[in-house]
Amino acid sequence: MSARAGIVVTGTEVLTGRIADRNGPWLAERLLELGVELAHITICGDRPGDLAAQLRFLAAEGVDLIITSGGLGPTADDLTVATVAEFCGRELVLDPELEARIADIVARVMARFPNVDADAVRAANRKQALIPAGAHVLEPVGTAPGVVVPGTPTVVVLPGPPRELQPMWRAAVATPAVQQAIAGRTRYRQDTVRMFGLPESALAATLRDAEVQIAGFERLEITTCVRRGEVEMVTRYEPDSAAVYAELLTLVRQRHGGEIFSEDGTTVDEQVAALLAGRRVATAESCTGGLLAARLTEIPGSSGYVCGSVVAYANDAKTAVLDVDPALVAAHGAVSEPVVAAMADGALRRFSADTAVAISGVAGPGGGTPDKPVGTVCFCVRLAEGPTVVRTLRLPGDRADVRERSTTVALHLLREVLSRPS
Amino acid sequence: MSARAGIVVTGTEVLTGRIADRNGPWLAERLLELGVELAHITICGDRPGDLAAQLRFLAAEGVDLIITSGGLGPTADDLTVATVAEFCGRELVLDPELEARIADIVARVMARFPNVDADAVRAANRKQALIPAGAHVLEPVGTAPGVVVPGTPTVVVLPGPPRELQPMWRAAVATPAVQQAIAGRTRYRQDTVRMFGLPESALAATLRDAEVQIAGFERLEITTCVRRGEVEMVTRYEPDSAAVYAELLTLVRQRHGGEIFSEDGTTVDEQVAALLAGRRVATAESCTGGLLAARLTEIPGSSGYVCGSVVAYANDAKTAVLDVDPALVAAHGAVSEPVVAAMADGALRRFSADTAVAISGVAGPGGGTPDKPVGTVCFCVRLAEGPTVVRTLRLPGDRADVRERSTTVALHLLREVLSRPS
Repeated sequence: MSARAGIVVTGTEVLTGRIADRNGPWLAERLLELGVELAHITICGDRPGDLAAQLRFLAAEGVDLIITSGGLGPTADDLTVATVAEFCGRELVLDPELEARIADIVARVMARFPNVDADAVRAANRKQALIPAGAHVLEPVGTAPGVVVPGTPTVVVLPGPPRELQPMWRAAVATPAVQQAIAGRTRYRQDTVRMFGLPESALAATLRDAEVQIAGFERLEITTCVRRGEVEMVTRYEPDSAAVYAELLTLVRQRHGGEIFSEDGTTVDEQVAALLAGRRVATAESCTGGLLAARLTEIPGSSGYVCGSVVAYANDAKTAVLDVDPALVAAHGAVSEPVVAAMADGALRRFSADTAVAISGVAGPGGGTPDKPVGTVCFCVRLAEGPTVVRTLRLPGDRADVRERSTTVALHLLREVLSRPS
Repeated sequence: MSARAGIVVTGTEVLTGRIADRNGPWLAERLLELGVELAHITICGDRPGDLAAQLRFLAAEGVDLIITSGGLGPTADDLTVATVAEFCGRELVLDPELEARIADIVARVMARFPNVDADAVRAANRKQALIPAGAHVLEPVGTAPGVVVPGTPTVVVLPGPPRELQPMWRAAVATPAVQQAIAGRTRYRQDTVRMFGLPESALAATLRDAEVQIAGFERLEITTCVRRGEVEMVTRYEPDSAAVYAELLTLVRQRHGGEIFSEDGTTVDEQVAALLAGRRVATAESCTGGLLAARLTEIPGSSGYVCGSVVAYANDAKTAVLDVDPALVAAHGAVSEPVVAAMADGALRRFSADTAVAISGVAGPGGGTPDKPVGTVCFCVRLAEGPTVVRTLRLPGDRADVRERSTTVALHLLREVLSRPS
């Protein structure tokens, strides 16, 4: 038994890359949790012909469930409900009670925009109350209702904005039509191993050996990928293959134990957050421009240990706000180990912190020299109680890559220093 | 005449949302520039059956060109070349010279990892030299070569890492096979209008009127979307419909002139960058944790006007680093207009800046009160020569939404203040 699903993301703004889709990935994770196999994600613009072709493709591939996102708005390019109704062979009918509920919502929104013609807006929103006959209505979180159309496949139609889609997906899963469509789902286990400082090729070589050495290896579905300089190995398997996975993990530990930093799915961000509990951390940043502080404070509750940050982008700011000796900058350059160490010292003092991370580098595209080409980044982690680590790396990629990769390197250095036995 | 294309993004890590795809959007923009119609983007995992189904779907939809990304690596889950070869009815053949070139590249990479068994890695990389018979080889930028397989449709196979894919796409476009596949391309014009402070529904109402009032309206392909609080209207049309677009623009200006901030495709980031030329800007951030400074410094050359930033996440940091009077925090709370104004003052002084932006808010999920619920954010823009704007808003969404939306609001306030006639 199994249950397979497809996701259709609609919207010319997504197809043409003006907006990055967040719904496909989010729904993919929810399907994985449910034990539903995601086979395909397809993206089309606001053209009913292309959307209809994708629905037919997924149905022909035999998926049990199709989830669409987007195209439920009030404008003329929002055509998903009408296209799905036609695909499912159902008439569109006006739901007058739903229309009244939408009118209420719109009236509340319009109160904030006194200069806008509310009648015209209400008329534009009327089409959102047209529903395929026999479909289950998902109450709007914004102004757009969703629908669940039972059938083979069952189709769930959700709005594009993630904060509307997410609660409405939960309502959709509770409907009998969706429960029936995913009745064949299987519980899988999924384990993640994360490594830092290893080329993907080295892991590939290990997996080739594992294929020969480990009986039942083919029952593991393994995917590897590199992101932000980390190599990630994700393995999915049915619970009765747990012993096979254990053997694989033993082999990977033998070969790459020094590079593994996570076997339980935790990210380096989560590990650093745990290590920082009870401490006071500050950052001093140049080329990353605040990205490290922003990344540390992404985590709810980080106010418990993050004091703050100084972004000293200009050289005179390094002196004025972080007390870096200008002679140091003159002698070694702003991207140098002595300067980054002085920045960390300044951050410790300025915030009365006990943990500081400093970053200074050449993010590009300009500013590179033969000695310090674009991608050269200096790091310093300093603890009030003593240990200091200073490192210089040459990171690949463009300006955005170098900036983002630098925050990952900094977190790994911080993890390394904070997890040393004292 | 027209030329249509489809993009196939492969990789379980993308399908399951562990990695966000950057190649689909990037290729979509390149196709638009070329005048090639992008009809579909499809995403599948590392399963040859699903990939083959997507290739057949796109061919059946009549696209002239298919571009695949990903699945060219050394690991066993990298199967794109073999699957495309089978789809195109071509044998896989070993290219010995290509194999030697890949071995050279791998040897250079491996020199950085002395503990890794280089022979095993070379063996793992050998499969990357297997090429569909008669295909054009795209030289590797990383270790993986791409291929162009001529036919109907022509298939371009590119690697997953963006910094490898991008130069290799340019090489692919230059091949006779791709030039022939896109021979029917049409030049389109595309214009973008961006608005801030307008609900999408209001624009929808205007477009409904435009449909009735403007002759030839149907020759405009209009898409609207909301992102980061901005409403964006993108219109695509053939050059001979320029007069129709001009009429639409006149109507939109009449109705929403006060909210339009861009008619030439520029973003608020670019406009603020231009307005800041010759100035010295500093930010003082609490809930955004450095995101505004990071956003200002995303732009190459921003070191010309960005001094830096203080992220004062803890209340004592607001006092210690930005000289905010603790009595002010005690009286009004850290999220208040007096405190955010004091933070801006502190940033001006600390960095000897002439322009400061301060942000303090409740990003959530905790920390909300009945008076100041999650999403309450205070902003201050202060110029050394006088004008100060202070504003408090209630922003929708989760922690990440509130933080990101806050940076957009701050940029619009900055634009507003800096573009006032002095």
